Amino acid sequence: MRLCRFKVGGKERFGIYSEGEIRGIKGNLFSPGKETGKTYREDEVEFLPPTQPTKIACIGFNFMKHRDELKDIATDEPTITLLAANSVTGHNRDILLPEISKKVDHEAELGVVIGKRGYRIEKPKEHILGYTIVNDVTARDIEHEMVQWSPSKSFPGFCPVGPCINTELDARNLRIQCRVNDEVRQDSRTGGMIYSPEECVRFVSKFMILERGDLIATGTVPGIGRLEDGDVVEVEIDGIGVLRNFMKKE
Amino acid sequence: MRLCRFKVGGKERFGIYSEGEIRGIKGNLFSPGKETGKTYREDEVEFLPPTQPTKIACIGFNFMKHRDELKDIATDEPTITLLAANSVTGHNRDILLPEISKKVDHEAELGVVIGKRGYRIEKPKEHILGYTIVNDVTARDIEHEMVQWSPSKSFPGFCPVGPCINTELDARNLRIQCRVNDEVRQDSRTGGMIYSPEECVRFVSKFMILERGDLIATGTVPGIGRLEDGDVVEVEIDGIGVLRNFMKKE
Repeated sequence: MRLCRFKVGGKERFGIYSEGEIRGIKGNLFSPGKETGKTYREDEVEFLPPTQPTKIACIGFNFMKHRDELKDIATDEPTITLLAANSVTGHNRDILLPEISKKVDHEAELGVVIGKRGYRIEKPKEHILGYTIVNDVTARDIEHEMVQWSPSKSFPGFCPVGPCINTELDARNLRIQCRVNDEVRQDSRTGGMIYSPEECVRFVSKFMILERGDLIATGTVPGIGRLEDGDVVEVEIDGIGVLRNFMKKE
Repeated sequence: MRLCRFKVGGKERFGIYSEGEIRGIKGNLFSPGKETGKTYREDEVEFLPPTQPTKIACIGFNFMKHRDELKDIATDEPTITLLAANSVTGHNRDILLPEISKKVDHEAELGVVIGKRGYRIEKPKEHILGYTIVNDVTARDIEHEMVQWSPSKSFPGFCPVGPCINTELDARNLRIQCRVNDEVRQDSRTGGMIYSPEECVRFVSKFMILERGDLIATGTVPGIGRLEDGDVVEVEIDGIGVLRNFMKKE
């Protein structure tokens, strides 16, 4: 099931997503109910981030080839940083380029959404609600200056998520593509991960309690690159859809 | 006013704190009401973290002398990392030493609690609810391995906060002391900060939206050191009180 959260007529609703169309449902992300019988065109709703995480954990250096791009700073094993949870935004929304950065990059990533609270999780499958798309937008110059990554990734809107969560996906070898103005910038498969999506859940939960709704961004694939005013950035993952955002000058 | 949050008889309450005694109040942290007329002894309540932050931002390298302790890794300017918000615990609670770390340290810090949401805050005073004590407990070995600091500081209970928030404190030159089993380990003043507590609010809000209740740990003073099973760790700050926790093996 591909679940999405959206706003229409000023009200927040949940629905089943397919390209171009959403079928409204009762209930919510964690207990989806029956269809309401109402359908909405994709262009008449405002997409919201499908989950409202209490934390966003990003895995760093989880693709061998991306590690090679950053070999001066890469750690031996993948690492973890946290993003401000209020940096999330939805599919089709603008992302403002903050004036204090001159180098804002896209990072296409598979997102894991937690369905059940856990610490030191041994059976990740039981704790995963489903998979979504994350563009882990990063102010690269600030990342380098600050060494700690959190601030460069926590600007308002820097964590677009969506358009939906697929609750029935085998995530072991999905294609992840990032396009900027239709030009392919990143194109890899989740099979190239050092820690698989399920292992990422186990890994993060060794250090902190994962709450229901929390989001893990599993690490970017090779090919990170610059975003400029006016750019349309799309991240596509098999079985989930396309997450599209519009870069705007402040 | 020194506000605290606590549990007694299974119910969560707010109160006005003075050493040894709490006077119950109506309302909450952001709109404290009249006294209820009930008083509680400190030893009959369970202290809760006085605030329930959506994010915890820690400032790194904010004391010149502490930067010298860590000169191999210090950045030119202070930096910022985020902690899992569910790592908070209260005054007088146990903190479990996780098996995967062999080097857990105390870090005594002044905490700033946000009273009003803001982004790119220009007048920090208007956004500060008050000041509290934070022990930014850190698994030093994991911090070094991971380079990114978030995981080493996000274990359950690694962010004790309390016992109260002082809403009427001039934080410019407060004494901060950390004692382990009555031995003084850290002893400095907030006057030695590179960014003052108010400047920390301005600094963090350059990168992310601060929500009401959010917590900024303003950086540790020199003298960080090891915590072992059985240790009693106390952080004392002028005008706020003593935050005491008990280190336990898992």
